[in-house]
Amino acid sequence: MFITFEGGEGSGKTTLIEKLKHTLLEKKYDVLTTREPGGSKVAEKIRSVLLDNKNTEITAHTEALLFAASRAQHLDEVIIPNLDKVILCDRYIDSSYAYQAFGRNLGMEFVQSINSYALKYLPDLTFYIDLDPKTGIDRVKKNRLHKTDRLDMEVQTFHQKVREGYIRISEMFKERIVVIDGNQSIDAIYQIIMDNILKRL
Amino acid sequence: MFITFEGGEGSGKTTLIEKLKHTLLEKKYDVLTTREPGGSKVAEKIRSVLLDNKNTEITAHTEALLFAASRAQHLDEVIIPNLDKVILCDRYIDSSYAYQAFGRNLGMEFVQSINSYALKYLPDLTFYIDLDPKTGIDRVKKNRLHKTDRLDMEVQTFHQKVREGYIRISEMFKERIVVIDGNQSIDAIYQIIMDNILKRL
Repeated sequence: MFITFEGGEGSGKTTLIEKLKHTLLEKKYDVLTTREPGGSKVAEKIRSVLLDNKNTEITAHTEALLFAASRAQHLDEVIIPNLDKVILCDRYIDSSYAYQAFGRNLGMEFVQSINSYALKYLPDLTFYIDLDPKTGIDRVKKNRLHKTDRLDMEVQTFHQKVREGYIRISEMFKERIVVIDGNQSIDAIYQIIMDNILKRL
Repeated sequence: MFITFEGGEGSGKTTLIEKLKHTLLEKKYDVLTTREPGGSKVAEKIRSVLLDNKNTEITAHTEALLFAASRAQHLDEVIIPNLDKVILCDRYIDSSYAYQAFGRNLGMEFVQSINSYALKYLPDLTFYIDLDPKTGIDRVKKNRLHKTDRLDMEVQTFHQKVREGYIRISEMFKERIVVIDGNQSIDAIYQIIMDNILKRL
């Protein structure tokens, strides 16, 4: 079962994935946690080009193609060989829709055409944790969750467009994407996700 | 005028571009020489991921997407702002056709779909220097032209498929691609190219 987690920075994805992994392992499921961009040696090298905040010249098209390259590598090295496990993946194709198709105005058609390989391996289930971007970025800053990367440095209007993108694609692909209000406590969000996963396992 | 040079390793592209640049500058043309993958700071970072012979895990899809990413960046930073000059570019879209669509068997449709942005900026003229790959690789080794990179390490059959690809696309796009026999002397090849360029300038 291939499960992906989507949302802006500070939405709690990393914490949730760790909690879910712990519980699923206790229930004796074979669990693999991974993330995008990155998740393998070569994909992490691509990630470092993408997120290095010195690479301010990266254009929208290049950014979208690098995410697609990292995804293709991660698919072949990590996702496809482990489809018999419960895979919990932090970000996947929907991040490219939200950030590049909507945030960067590249459009769904362009993003889908460069991700045609990944579209053969859609997740069984996707959780989108919806949160006002300002709230999320404040959380990241307050808790110093990670070093500010190139995408964190984007202006507020960009993150707002990303959120609107997520809402649009959650409607487009509602058979796959579960939308969760990110203003709830981590424990409440965790319970909603766990209920959904156990229902399908 | 946007002019590209294609061919396998050891076909003499680098030497020819330097000679052509020298003559065109003497004739008072504004000339820019550049290369793919690379040609700008970010694109060179992508190049180093692509050609590093330690990155043996790179899959065919990832390779094609990284070339497309490097190309998109190089287009926006180098090619498009200089279209008023005579641009001499070592490799461009036809390398992706020959190496990835044919050499890696990804097919023309996939390679065209991920390069849709570059297809808006086709070269005015392309010179393909045709040479038996064995002859080319022997030349590179003999003259120690450069350090062996990840693509040089490919088996002979791969380079043979690349050459067959070049021949196929030279037929497909014959209004743009001039095929030159690479067994001739560099001076003879240089003269053919210069005659073609001056006819169109």
